[in-house]
Amino acid sequence: MEKKHLNILLFSGDYDKCLAAFILANGAAGMGVTVTIFCAFWGLLILRDPNKMDNDTKDLFEKMFSSFTPAGAEQLPLSKMNLAGVGKTMLLNMMDDKQTPHLQDFLEGAQKKGVKFCACKLSMEIMGFKAEELLSGIEVVDVNNYLQDALQANAQFFI
Amino acid sequence: MEKKHLNILLFSGDYDKCLAAFILANGAAGMGVTVTIFCAFWGLLILRDPNKMDNDTKDLFEKMFSSFTPAGAEQLPLSKMNLAGVGKTMLLNMMDDKQTPHLQDFLEGAQKKGVKFCACKLSMEIMGFKAEELLSGIEVVDVNNYLQDALQANAQFFI
Amino acid sequence: MEKKHLNILLFSGDYDKCLAAFILANGAAGMGVTVTIFCAFWGLLILRDPNKMDNDTKDLFEKMFSSFTPAGAEQLPLSKMNLAGVGKTMLLNMMDDKQTPHLQDFLEGAQKKGVKFCACKLSMEIMGFKAEELLSGIEVVDVNNYLQDALQANAQFFI
Repeated sequence: MEKKHLNILLFSGDYDKCLAAFILANGAAGMGVTVTIFCAFWGLLILRDPNKMDNDTKDLFEKMFSSFTPAGAEQLPLSKMNLAGVGKTMLLNMMDDKQTPHLQDFLEGAQKKGVKFCACKLSMEIMGFKAEELLSGIEVVDVNNYLQDALQANAQFFI
Repeated sequence: MEKKHLNILLFSGDYDKCLAAFILANGAAGMGVTVTIFCAFWGLLILRDPNKMDNDTKDLFEKMFSSFTPAGAEQLPLSKMNLAGVGKTMLLNMMDDKQTPHLQDFLEGAQKKGVKFCACKLSMEIMGFKAEELLSGIEVVDVNNYLQDALQANAQFFI
Repeated sequence: MEKKHLNILLFSGDYDKCLAAFILANGAAGMGVTVTIFCAFWGLLILRDPNKMDNDTKDLFEKMFSSFTPAGAEQLPLSKMNLAGVGKTMLLNMMDDKQTPHLQDFLEGAQKKGVKFCACKLSMEIMGFKAEELLSGIEVVDVNNYLQDALQANAQFFI
């Protein structure tokens, strides 16, 4: 059977939506499907390494933006019922009760399973993020590279 | 002509987004297209039967979660301009003026037209929902079952 | 090589999500891909021409709805961190610093590149928008027309 191919454009920076994206990505990779995740706009927040933040070379807006936005998977808020963090704590407790891994675990699992992560070049430029501030192993690509991958995939999701 | 196949992952629990999903599903089913809707996370709320709520076997977080979230199609809020319900009332009034069916009608129409509804097993576990609390005719499946369906569909939507 | 085909269902009326949709549409059109954008619900707001608003033939709800919603690309809010407009101003400043075009520019670019724009007939009726209030060159089509296009495309996005 021909190898299947799943393409995910991760636009959202919400904990629950990113969780859905990574559950799909890990599930597909486990089935032998080729998976690409292209992170753009708020989806870039998940790729920021909290230990590699570098504000020295940023201008004022970039510094403000960088400081006001979450860095890394576990800092992301919920898309609804976040209730200043209470809803997220409740969800995480419910996940723990069922031994469900957290977002950070799914992200690391995806990397181990060979899911390919790309960061959107244009979004990086607009938001003032540098490649050195990201987790290791992330390729920065432009929208044309992304589209070439997406248009030949068996399924595409905009999340 | 080969029978076409539409796959919808309903993640959202917003009235307007669910309405869009069901208008697509009903339209496609009416054209002879095979349609699968896989409800995950907030999308599960639409499958809850308000007459079958069972909090007796739930733990504390599950009970709180079950009580704070809407049950059934017509209780869902709008994704924007909800304005504590005023915006939704306005939208429903505008829909009534044009004799547009409500979400609950579209849901029942989809079931009559043979649209297949699935509930995400992992989301059910995390949120503490039981299969007996759902509308009848809903199959509970895992992400791998979902992906097999999605990867062979002609179109997939993440809504 | 067979001509590729991208289909976008633009449901969202958020500045950042519409920007993502148009960056994809312009990128694809520039690669010779056939692109259709079907605007439904909040996505219709982007197609309203601020100079062609006509409230005379609207009923009360339609007038209220028309007045409370943004008209045209540049009036749209952000999906998150909008902060009553401050977040959007910051984003626009950051875009200007990198000479990134605004949403309105991308929209006009897409029209020049031959991207096909359609407006959802049912959404137009519900919201009380008239075809004469839209930008020129927009075709009003129903969901079946849309689905026929989507089901034969190489990739579909619900944004």
